[in-house]
Amino acid sequence: MAHRVFNFSAGPSTLPLSVLEQVQAELLDYRGTGMSIMESSHRSPEYDAVNESAIALTREVLGLPDDFHILFLTGGASQQFAMIPMNFLKQGGVGSYVDTGTWSSKAIKECQGIGETHVAFAGKGGDYAHIPTDDELDVPEGAEYLHITTNNTIKGTQFHHTPNVKVPLIADMSSDIGSMRRDYSAYSMLYAGAQKNLGPAGVTLVAMRDELLQKSNDELPTVLNYKTPAGKKSLYNTPPSFPIYVVNLVLQWIKDQGGLKAVERVNQQKKDLVYGMIDEHPEFFRGTAEKDSRSWMNLTLRLPDEAMEKRFIAEAKAEGLGGLKGHRSVGGIRVSLYNAMPLAGAEAVCHFMKQFMAKG
Amino acid sequence: MAHRVFNFSAGPSTLPLSVLEQVQAELLDYRGTGMSIMESSHRSPEYDAVNESAIALTREVLGLPDDFHILFLTGGASQQFAMIPMNFLKQGGVGSYVDTGTWSSKAIKECQGIGETHVAFAGKGGDYAHIPTDDELDVPEGAEYLHITTNNTIKGTQFHHTPNVKVPLIADMSSDIGSMRRDYSAYSMLYAGAQKNLGPAGVTLVAMRDELLQKSNDELPTVLNYKTPAGKKSLYNTPPSFPIYVVNLVLQWIKDQGGLKAVERVNQQKKDLVYGMIDEHPEFFRGTAEKDSRSWMNLTLRLPDEAMEKRFIAEAKAEGLGGLKGHRSVGGIRVSLYNAMPLAGAEAVCHFMKQFMAKG
Repeated sequence: MAHRVFNFSAGPSTLPLSVLEQVQAELLDYRGTGMSIMESSHRSPEYDAVNESAIALTREVLGLPDDFHILFLTGGASQQFAMIPMNFLKQGGVGSYVDTGTWSSKAIKECQGIGETHVAFAGKGGDYAHIPTDDELDVPEGAEYLHITTNNTIKGTQFHHTPNVKVPLIADMSSDIGSMRRDYSAYSMLYAGAQKNLGPAGVTLVAMRDELLQKSNDELPTVLNYKTPAGKKSLYNTPPSFPIYVVNLVLQWIKDQGGLKAVERVNQQKKDLVYGMIDEHPEFFRGTAEKDSRSWMNLTLRLPDEAMEKRFIAEAKAEGLGGLKGHRSVGGIRVSLYNAMPLAGAEAVCHFMKQFMAKG
Repeated sequence: MAHRVFNFSAGPSTLPLSVLEQVQAELLDYRGTGMSIMESSHRSPEYDAVNESAIALTREVLGLPDDFHILFLTGGASQQFAMIPMNFLKQGGVGSYVDTGTWSSKAIKECQGIGETHVAFAGKGGDYAHIPTDDELDVPEGAEYLHITTNNTIKGTQFHHTPNVKVPLIADMSSDIGSMRRDYSAYSMLYAGAQKNLGPAGVTLVAMRDELLQKSNDELPTVLNYKTPAGKKSLYNTPPSFPIYVVNLVLQWIKDQGGLKAVERVNQQKKDLVYGMIDEHPEFFRGTAEKDSRSWMNLTLRLPDEAMEKRFIAEAKAEGLGGLKGHRSVGGIRVSLYNAMPLAGAEAVCHFMKQFMAKG
């Protein structure tokens, strides 16, 4: 048995052990082909089957209707921050953004360099601890889109509802895609770097309604126009084939667990355990997000002082609980509980929290 | 022992078996960390060591001076086709291009949509069988750069000299980087999708002199400006960490073979065997490139008729020699002999060619 720790890293992050075992088993000889899938031409029937399967499973697992194009791109969410306004603000339209933290702010900053940018909600004043209700949103009529970040890894907040707005909704779902049931079809576009709930770093899932795709800016360089990958099943040029292969296995794993309903149930149990521990001991643990806005994926908290936080992270690591350090921009503790983290991981971190608190 | 074939695919392509075995061995537990390197945070000391090593080995193996920035980007050569003119033609300068085939043509087309584009050599009239000498190049004085494609996978041609020009030289080396000694330092910028000689698909190596980097266009979106990754050791946002990890192992493998000199010697032996077979039997095998312009990486040939070519490809595959089909745009046979193809692979293909010819 391989030595394995519980890895609470915010991303790249833990993957299902059964997926890694399968990757390992077929690494030298992919299903009798006599080569690794990473050595296989992206025009081979073997890779084509991987690509088709990843597209079909994305649609099935997320429940996306047929008019969604499913693309596997590169450059992470950061490249999407640029491609969205480059594609959709060509005719002087307005991009509207909900600012719920660092990643939203980066998306806004990128848009500001490209087209007219509007902030529908500014969370900074409340230290990004709050996710706005629909009443708190100010979306200009006729905006090309409203952009939200469904989950915020740094401040530990998450949308638990889908904003009901009259303009196309675009969501950066990098850190919570496929972790819960959601009306994914209520969005015009959603995108996610794979490296949290879907697989390894190096591939970005983009799902987009055909109606939005048709508005893409044809004057952009080929690879920056969404129509290019959409017209070629993401095979215009060589895709990141190995990361997509792993994503396909992770999607199959989600399906095998019982789909989003089953995955959501375990994610709920995990976050209930850890938030329960925090709320039972408010004198020692302080959650940083408002209760209604709490993330199920990234649970952020502070201890009584920074020296104690440092010790907490180091002692946890020594006990096989890695990656608990908060983002370098905010400090504190962050417990990331993505899909692939088993319930036993959440139990182990709670046990450690209790022990640590008792020692003081 | 895993079942392995000789994989002559033009890319993604065969990787050194010892590298794949190492990847397999450490897939579940990377060097005692209790997690896969693909699960490791890109801010972890383990990944930082991989990144630093890949940068240092690129510099060492290619012999690049200290004033070269070494970047690991995404989007393949196709994205570089756009990023180069976006970054360097901002002030109305001219980009000059040598057109030696499909990939050069795509780079030219992309530039035409962005800035003033000049063709220094047009190879299409000669069916791209010829690589120009310096005398055949028409480079405008004051051009921002001259762009060449050192190796052409589709037509099987390759630069065996470095053009001596008075403007900065930029080279797409996707299909022959690190396969031979070359005065890499004579270039201002070189780039390569990893999926031929360097590793799996999903990462693009870009090496660029600081003098050129400083000319990057600061008005571009963040991720499209070369200064962004250059200022952060390619860690501005999450990199394709697993592909970079494999690239690092492949670079170490090149070094362990004895560096470019040793790798070049084997590559020379391999191509001499296969071209030898072609030239000894001109009545049956017809090489498509001019002899002086022949590629060592992608050896393209035709048989007497297409039906025979089809049979050649199928029978070779049945004997464990895969990926011999020419590019779908030109047909014929293509024998790709990248670094990781052992001498035994070239011997096997020659043996098969002889047998096939004898049967007729």
